Amino acid sequence: MYRPEIKVLDCSIRDGGLMNNHQFSLDLVRKVYKALSEAGVDYIELGYRNSKKMFSADEYGPWKFCTDEDIYRAIDGIESNSKISVMADVGRVDMEDIKPASESPIDMIRTAVYVKDIDKAIAMTNTFSDLGYETTINIMALSRDQGFELDEALNQIENECQADVIYIVDSFGSMYQESVAHLVKKFKSVIKTKELGFHGHNNQQLAFSNTIEAIIHNANYLDGTIFGIGRAAGNCTLELLIGFLKNPKYTIRPILDLIAEDFIPMQRDLEWGYMIPYAMTGMTNNHPRAAMQFLKTEERDKYSAFYDEIYTKMD
Amino acid sequence: MYRPEIKVLDCSIRDGGLMNNHQFSLDLVRKVYKALSEAGVDYIELGYRNSKKMFSADEYGPWKFCTDEDIYRAIDGIESNSKISVMADVGRVDMEDIKPASESPIDMIRTAVYVKDIDKAIAMTNTFSDLGYETTINIMALSRDQGFELDEALNQIENECQADVIYIVDSFGSMYQESVAHLVKKFKSVIKTKELGFHGHNNQQLAFSNTIEAIIHNANYLDGTIFGIGRAAGNCTLELLIGFLKNPKYTIRPILDLIAEDFIPMQRDLEWGYMIPYAMTGMTNNHPRAAMQFLKTEERDKYSAFYDEIYTKMD
Repeated sequence: MYRPEIKVLDCSIRDGGLMNNHQFSLDLVRKVYKALSEAGVDYIELGYRNSKKMFSADEYGPWKFCTDEDIYRAIDGIESNSKISVMADVGRVDMEDIKPASESPIDMIRTAVYVKDIDKAIAMTNTFSDLGYETTINIMALSRDQGFELDEALNQIENECQADVIYIVDSFGSMYQESVAHLVKKFKSVIKTKELGFHGHNNQQLAFSNTIEAIIHNANYLDGTIFGIGRAAGNCTLELLIGFLKNPKYTIRPILDLIAEDFIPMQRDLEWGYMIPYAMTGMTNNHPRAAMQFLKTEERDKYSAFYDEIYTKMD
Repeated sequence: MYRPEIKVLDCSIRDGGLMNNHQFSLDLVRKVYKALSEAGVDYIELGYRNSKKMFSADEYGPWKFCTDEDIYRAIDGIESNSKISVMADVGRVDMEDIKPASESPIDMIRTAVYVKDIDKAIAMTNTFSDLGYETTINIMALSRDQGFELDEALNQIENECQADVIYIVDSFGSMYQESVAHLVKKFKSVIKTKELGFHGHNNQQLAFSNTIEAIIHNANYLDGTIFGIGRAAGNCTLELLIGFLKNPKYTIRPILDLIAEDFIPMQRDLEWGYMIPYAMTGMTNNHPRAAMQFLKTEERDKYSAFYDEIYTKMD
């Protein structure tokens, strides 16, 4: 029996954009939006809502900024029941640039934050909520930040924040199913008035199973990406996730040919997915940054050298 | 705290051999044996002990037959504390060809069987045990065969069989962590005098997490393969498994450069790993055979056609 409360959010263009400076062509974004709409995905995240005052539009593509105009171009004429989401980073949004939801193609704004900046995220999120958007707070790097500051943050979120959903984010791909079960239960014990979500990374090939574990413990908002596209090792694979879910509205068929025609060729270029350096940063609970840098060097195949580097840095 | 009862078995050469008719070069097998020995792996499985009367040595390489002479050539002069395992298929072994363990380089013989042939497997296994080998029974296709015949088979195994270890094998890569937990508990409720093991396939990127789930429920014998090499989508990734285990004797460092130098180039040719047709046979609880055949055709990228084919066949 399926759980009708479950919602699937695809963030292929948003998290995948971290691998190409958000330079996806308009044609590809439209194909993705169309296929995901046909697949029955509930939310489609098209990018970040970063400020053009802080980032150069020469260096970054349109999905770094997600202006309403760019979003209209992406969705124009495509039949869809899916909602549109964008991500907001704390400190990188021009808040005066956000129109009321009733005047925007955006349905949901997700605020990404580290535990230490939770006050800023709550303030931003409440502003978005007041403007009429659905809102989430996505707490990053939770494999690292589980001390008393997290307890305080969760209490603040429950009491001060209008967000509809609170996401557990395994930024480093270092969680196992027991870590996910522990965190979802911990969040549930404090967050009583909002839904929980889960966003995994696939450094140790655990993003999908960790998402299943979150489902088992009653998280209802689930992130996936087509063929796992995303930063470094990538994310929970959307086709596996909606293949697993029993809700009759989901079907993988519309995204299958898109994978063969567009995502497999892109993967050869952008190189997300399971690679030994990413597995090692996951195992050691580190940001994939060091692995991404290592893979840009000529020594990129000397995995034992990276092993020595990462274990030396931990000393 | 680690569990000293846990044993890791690498079956890279055995399960990987299903992708190249067991044609690995002697040089590669020696490198694998050396690296796995240094990594602290408990058992190294070098192939099948099939009869040369039933299979042609022109068509298949030496690791389909694993004669004592071939094994001696593979291990000669390499320092190792690892034990050597081979797999025996019901009905494909020349039983008169098996010497006493004291005269053989082989330490363990694992008998692979479907539930319906359990009587044959028990007879074979008891013969191997009488000859002095460590023995296991690996029950295949358990995602399909869970009816009353399995209950009967488990009781027979517990009461009539000398095997040291009984393996749960997810041949189709279709189990989730809840299926694994269910099966391990079911096995434990009957099998009181033997250890349990788990062998996963990675069709849905769940081989590693399913192995963790088996560990959580006290299975102690765990199969992995280097970089996941194995039939179709491959197996639980050995480097992730021994990176996860806390037993101080395991280290991934010795296999890292072997992955870069040998396994990644081999993967380009043999093409094990996550691919959409394998994901689909996993999702639908089917043998990967149909996907392997499909991937040999010129239409191999038409995933939606394979989707239609597999769902039509299920009607």
